[in-house]
Amino acid sequence: MPHLTIEYSSNLPGYPEAQALADLNASLCASPEILDEADLKSRFVRTSGSFQIGTQPANRAFVHAQLRLLSGRSPEAKKDLAGRIAEVLRRHTPHPAGVLVQLSVEIVDMDRPSYVKERL
Amino acid sequence: MPHLTIEYSSNLPGYPEAQALADLNASLCASPEILDEADLKSRFVRTSGSFQIGTQPANRAFVHAQLRLLSGRSPEAKKDLAGRIAEVLRRHTPHPAGVLVQLSVEIVDMDRPSYVKERL
Amino acid sequence: MPHLTIEYSSNLPGYPEAQALADLNASLCASPEILDEADLKSRFVRTSGSFQIGTQPANRAFVHAQLRLLSGRSPEAKKDLAGRIAEVLRRHTPHPAGVLVQLSVEIVDMDRPSYVKERL
Repeated sequence: MPHLTIEYSSNLPGYPEAQALADLNASLCASPEILDEADLKSRFVRTSGSFQIGTQPANRAFVHAQLRLLSGRSPEAKKDLAGRIAEVLRRHTPHPAGVLVQLSVEIVDMDRPSYVKERL
Repeated sequence: MPHLTIEYSSNLPGYPEAQALADLNASLCASPEILDEADLKSRFVRTSGSFQIGTQPANRAFVHAQLRLLSGRSPEAKKDLAGRIAEVLRRHTPHPAGVLVQLSVEIVDMDRPSYVKERL
Repeated sequence: MPHLTIEYSSNLPGYPEAQALADLNASLCASPEILDEADLKSRFVRTSGSFQIGTQPANRAFVHAQLRLLSGRSPEAKKDLAGRIAEVLRRHTPHPAGVLVQLSVEIVDMDRPSYVKERL
């Protein structure tokens, strides 16, 4: 059931999405928290509208990953999963000259009792 | 105030979004949890960037619905709402030949005290 | 670390995204809750797929803001931040003739122990 969404600002052109996805899914599925590799659904979203970071006119970019998991994981497991994601994104994120790039990773608990999951 | 977002992978072309929305809103607004039909805001999002499901080279697709509600609903009410959404998406989701399609539905509590809602 | 996402329905053409972002970031960064202006990452998302509000054939639109913050803020601080966002969006949101426009603002707590944040 995990859902991974990686959003990045449109001033990071040429983001190697497919390579990053392959590495992200491999690293996360190697965790004991993910029992069936087919459950992990990962996608990239590039900002399509306007964005602004802070209030200064600096040249800034962001990459933000959100992993949504059924509730019940230990704090240690969540930190480990966030670290796996950060490690891959740190390697793959482009660094255009003069752009300050921020990376963040967030783990979200999904409500387990009401979650529906099926294969059609 | 409920917000429904249905995201699906771009390898499910021809998704009948408008028909599914009509049925989703009708089914959810028939629940006693939704007092004013005008409150329910539903939208479809088709993945615009790369996506990958798991680590195997299988042909896979996903549909994921997220319903965000003000906190305070009972577990039974949440399960009922998730079931209504799943029932509609099960009927409308395309099944391209050779593609394994996963469906999931998540209910999210929104923080009630800080929520702002107004008509402009 | 705050992440602000403002989503609006595609029947609100000409939304002044850049002006709204400048005012949103200025107003939020003036709050004592945001210590470093560079941390605030704000973006607009216009619906790209189909959307439907309620079940009646009325002409309706929505603007929905979500601010994600590390957990630990007081209820008063969250209400203040939501109010700042609403005030700016109330001013900037277009009002096409005959369209009922709904505005909502949601504050979300992010799990603090597992959050990763770094500058690349």
